[in-house]
Amino acid sequence: MTASLQLIAVPGIPLVQPGDDLTGLIIAGIATAGLVLQDHDVVVIAQKVVSKAEGRFVDLATIEPSQRAETLAREVNKDPRLVEVILADARRIVRSGRDVLIVEHRLGFVMANAGVDQSNVAGPHDRQLALMLPRDPDASAARLQEGLQRRFGCRIGVVINDSLGRPWRLGTVGVAIGCAGLPALLDLRGQPDLFGRKLQVTVIGYADEIAAAASLLMGQADEARPVVIVRGLPRQDRCLPARSLIRPAGEDLFR
Amino acid sequence: MTASLQLIAVPGIPLVQPGDDLTGLIIAGIATAGLVLQDHDVVVIAQKVVSKAEGRFVDLATIEPSQRAETLAREVNKDPRLVEVILADARRIVRSGRDVLIVEHRLGFVMANAGVDQSNVAGPHDRQLALMLPRDPDASAARLQEGLQRRFGCRIGVVINDSLGRPWRLGTVGVAIGCAGLPALLDLRGQPDLFGRKLQVTVIGYADEIAAAASLLMGQADEARPVVIVRGLPRQDRCLPARSLIRPAGEDLFR
Repeated sequence: MTASLQLIAVPGIPLVQPGDDLTGLIIAGIATAGLVLQDHDVVVIAQKVVSKAEGRFVDLATIEPSQRAETLAREVNKDPRLVEVILADARRIVRSGRDVLIVEHRLGFVMANAGVDQSNVAGPHDRQLALMLPRDPDASAARLQEGLQRRFGCRIGVVINDSLGRPWRLGTVGVAIGCAGLPALLDLRGQPDLFGRKLQVTVIGYADEIAAAASLLMGQADEARPVVIVRGLPRQDRCLPARSLIRPAGEDLFR
Repeated sequence: MTASLQLIAVPGIPLVQPGDDLTGLIIAGIATAGLVLQDHDVVVIAQKVVSKAEGRFVDLATIEPSQRAETLAREVNKDPRLVEVILADARRIVRSGRDVLIVEHRLGFVMANAGVDQSNVAGPHDRQLALMLPRDPDASAARLQEGLQRRFGCRIGVVINDSLGRPWRLGTVGVAIGCAGLPALLDLRGQPDLFGRKLQVTVIGYADEIAAAASLLMGQADEARPVVIVRGLPRQDRCLPARSLIRPAGEDLFR
């Protein structure tokens, strides 16, 4: 049998609003397409729609920037109120410079602007909204997994993905910020290679590869396809949350 | 119509030897599976089989390590002859430490061990071989693209992928080290989002996302599936090689 994977965008997901039942919207979209979920499917969901459903908006008009945010905002050339929102979700600043603010998010992820986003956020034109990451994306993934499993009576995985920049390489790629029902990291160390030697460095950022694959289908210029089903991945019995993808600071040569 | 992508592993690729006609092996594998390539297919090929076909092996027994390699080998806990091979393909050392040697490859990629690999390399047991990256992976991708296009009479893309570690995150992910027939970077800047605002930071590491997706199917513990067809990506008229994914050193805050 030829090994293959299928990625299917769930159609008909409307613009998500705070308080929306995201699980219900996904179930309706899957039904619209005449699909059902199957054992070992992984459902990848864009961070933005999870954040929106969880009401993670901040109206910048309500933000009083601190002195620290004002100073930093001048350095990084951003709205001081936005910088205040970023700092509120950051443990520490990793790098700052003109147009660049890379922080360690309170969840541990090193990312630009603490994942706070201004584009593609719905709102009346006289309000400027920022959208923060979900409060606990692994928990969000677990809730979505549970709801989808209950509806479809099968064992699935859920990945919440976001598009992140990288050092050394240009362009953003999809990575996992939340994960349930699958191992975010796949540890193959100790398995023999084709010639019986032990594989040396083979811990795979499995959920990140799934997140990147789904990003190809989600697109970026609109949010018409924020949910993608990945079908054909092998069964995995071990589960590890997305937070296990974070390299411990003490082992990280680049912070 | 539901948007979807299909990833198909090309079956029956044998263990590749120096001098093998890789294009021919891929064509034979595609035929075995009863497949044909179609317009806009992207064929992702593992770096290892490209390097092997190009004979990029080094027999460590033939290497006389320099004093610099000897000293560095003690620091990083590696075979001095292997370190010599790594240094030969490196522009400079980015970080070194116990079991860690991250360099800027002469091609510009920042990567551990200059991409030199010892695992999964065929050889008699009394020889220790190292396998270097292809000499010019973008050119290798272009050659493979040309051969496959000639055979199938269609317009395809080719990505050569490798599994690389990252700062900040654990686990390796597939990235593109060679690319032809598609834009390695996809620049969406200036396009409006759903609400008419200009997208801010939207340059996508497109070939890297394709590389990561294909890695899911290739696996790591053996080389049974070093070639994957990605089908369903939209037509792209602009082409950019994988070297455009390299962040210019002057704009890189993490070297």
